[in-house]
Amino acid sequence: MQAEIIAVGSELLTPARLDTNSLWLTQQLNELGIELVMKMVVGDERERLAAAVRAALERTPLLLVSGGLGPTEDDVTREAVAQALGRPLVFVPELLEASERRFRSAHRVMAEINRRQAFLIEGAEALPNEVGTAPGQWIRQGERAVVLLPGPPGELKPMFSRHVLPRLAPLVPPLVIRTRVYRVTGLAESDLDQRISPVYKRYANPATTVLAAPGDIQVHLRARCSSQQEAEALLEELGGQIEALLGDRIYSRGEPMEKVVGELLRARSATLAVAESCTGGLLAERITSIPGSSDYFLGGFLVYNDRTKIALAGVPGELLERHGAVSEPVACALAEGACRRTGATYALAVTGVAGPGGGSRTAPVGTVYIAVAGPEGVEARCFRFLGDRERVRGFAAQTALDALRRRLLVSSRAPAAAPPQPR
Amino acid sequence: MQAEIIAVGSELLTPARLDTNSLWLTQQLNELGIELVMKMVVGDERERLAAAVRAALERTPLLLVSGGLGPTEDDVTREAVAQALGRPLVFVPELLEASERRFRSAHRVMAEINRRQAFLIEGAEALPNEVGTAPGQWIRQGERAVVLLPGPPGELKPMFSRHVLPRLAPLVPPLVIRTRVYRVTGLAESDLDQRISPVYKRYANPATTVLAAPGDIQVHLRARCSSQQEAEALLEELGGQIEALLGDRIYSRGEPMEKVVGELLRARSATLAVAESCTGGLLAERITSIPGSSDYFLGGFLVYNDRTKIALAGVPGELLERHGAVSEPVACALAEGACRRTGATYALAVTGVAGPGGGSRTAPVGTVYIAVAGPEGVEARCFRFLGDRERVRGFAAQTALDALRRRLLVSSRAPAAAPPQPR
Repeated sequence: MQAEIIAVGSELLTPARLDTNSLWLTQQLNELGIELVMKMVVGDERERLAAAVRAALERTPLLLVSGGLGPTEDDVTREAVAQALGRPLVFVPELLEASERRFRSAHRVMAEINRRQAFLIEGAEALPNEVGTAPGQWIRQGERAVVLLPGPPGELKPMFSRHVLPRLAPLVPPLVIRTRVYRVTGLAESDLDQRISPVYKRYANPATTVLAAPGDIQVHLRARCSSQQEAEALLEELGGQIEALLGDRIYSRGEPMEKVVGELLRARSATLAVAESCTGGLLAERITSIPGSSDYFLGGFLVYNDRTKIALAGVPGELLERHGAVSEPVACALAEGACRRTGATYALAVTGVAGPGGGSRTAPVGTVYIAVAGPEGVEARCFRFLGDRERVRGFAAQTALDALRRRLLVSSRAPAAAPPQPR
Repeated sequence: MQAEIIAVGSELLTPARLDTNSLWLTQQLNELGIELVMKMVVGDERERLAAAVRAALERTPLLLVSGGLGPTEDDVTREAVAQALGRPLVFVPELLEASERRFRSAHRVMAEINRRQAFLIEGAEALPNEVGTAPGQWIRQGERAVVLLPGPPGELKPMFSRHVLPRLAPLVPPLVIRTRVYRVTGLAESDLDQRISPVYKRYANPATTVLAAPGDIQVHLRARCSSQQEAEALLEELGGQIEALLGDRIYSRGEPMEKVVGELLRARSATLAVAESCTGGLLAERITSIPGSSDYFLGGFLVYNDRTKIALAGVPGELLERHGAVSEPVACALAEGACRRTGATYALAVTGVAGPGGGSRTAPVGTVYIAVAGPEGVEARCFRFLGDRERVRGFAAQTALDALRRRLLVSSRAPAAAPPQPR
């Protein structure tokens, strides 16, 4: 089966914005064995959008339209698709009531304009929006199907997964697709590819894709077979070789680092605190982005100058004077202070120069010390990250979490009383 | 004048790749006063591409096609566009010779396959490619124009600048474009639109676009005129009315909230600390994402359980027992503790239930108390945010920054010693 995607929104036709929903949707379609043959971006113009919808449905049996379902005048998707299909819009009182309930539960009054979102194209099924106010729509036209989805990714994704996938699956012949993801840190993309490409290039199936973000590379394997056993066997064959080549640089099968570290802490009934200088809260923000993280994360310190490093985290002033804030002894003192003052089993500390200013000869921009304190003692390492402020902070947070992951893996192999294992 | 862009390449229809050439091209077109009305991605399929080109030219006078000009079988752009225009391809010996010279100068032998690149659509002008081997093409068809460009950005950009811009400029009347952005918080998108749409709908020029993210709405005005004065006057006329309607809900002309708050602090030589519970570092992360934020941000506390609220931020234990962690008195005590223990002029505190777990009858998921402490005293407010964990945390951080912004604006009108102004 073939599909097209139309992203609606004049802002997506400006030099500063891209339609990224289509990437995620493509992935979802591909996993069902549906091929994307064209995608389009159309502005908030009803006539033009109606023409694009009509043309797409003439050549392709499945059309996904994202965006333009909001309450305002420039949200024209409902009207345009109705026009393209030659069907009227129908007011559905239940949708209005649901929307009013939603506003009431937030102690707000629903603006009259939200009535627009209570209109369905005749014959459409409403797709519930658990996150926002605009419902989606699922419309069959003979053998064809049109799906209207809200533009915000946080609304589009759950709606597609919960309400569109189950409706699409019966329309396509079963093709078994099994994927495996390895998430890797501590290697540059080119180094990783040099290691594993001689292996994965021997396989057309599974197909291998390498996606790189700062400090976080994903290796995707994707097997397409007629049976699940066959697909699993292929993944196991290629995956086993990749695991052997990358070892403990692989930190998960898809979960983010903060989840992996959280699970290791939980399994050990251990707790965590942080003391952040240059990451300024990013490390804690990542840790606490995981629901239930209060089971192991206690809190910590944001220490953005010398005074707070001393007053909050208890770093001795003479250590700062002698070594400077961006140094191994200060990183260690921050981690120990966070452990001591919060009572946590482990603590992570980050101190460095995120830039663009603040660099010096001994600590140029990108220099970051990361310390881990725990029952086995405290240890700091120096890193030099390349890139702008955001990238340096991102690398620093990821590397700090990885340092804790490695410490926890070692500590599980050696009881706390034994001397630390050489690594 | 209006334009469309078609990006050609099956790889651009995979989940991992985006057409980014179109962003740069859009910028170039906009600067000439040419408006992009649609963009498309088509795979390496001749028939489908020919149909897309034909349809685009029926509705729009200028079409840019990028990619598919290479030497291999799956480079179908030349053939597809020739077919769409109903013109033959013509072999141009000079193009072949130029290509052979290029290979010779690199001491390489030209593969026979490169002959394909020596074909022009009848009537086309060849656009020299100083970087790669595939020439571009410039084709007039009556009042319409089609431009074929190579896909690699390093070839497309210089070719467009040197050979396409000079051909496009005479086709369009001189046009000046000026834009203005308002960033707004503290209003739902529908409420904002209800307030300002009666005004902006009276204007086709400037065109108004409303972009909404959680807690952060952008209103873009875009004036297109024949002179700069005229454009500025139109922006001032519409902008002034929007400013009057939205008042201090407008927090900037484009800069993010954390930048605005940072500048207000800097202008007052004031400093800031935070105490974060449910935002878990997000608030500080946003503040410190601004280069130079160490001039005013001192640090603070991550207090993810009762114990750290007491031990780190100095919240009295009996306050927690009596009111619970998610309460006005605890929010105030957190902000006061952060001020006192860091010596900051101001402190922000956030305590709430981000979910999905942890909700109670008195404090359901989404309940967040935000406190501001400063020389004028301490004040907390309760909010009920809708959405998932990420959304609640995002709203909470944005609302906390806005609370500080409002406090700082008031404090600039009243000296610190005077009683607070009614708001």
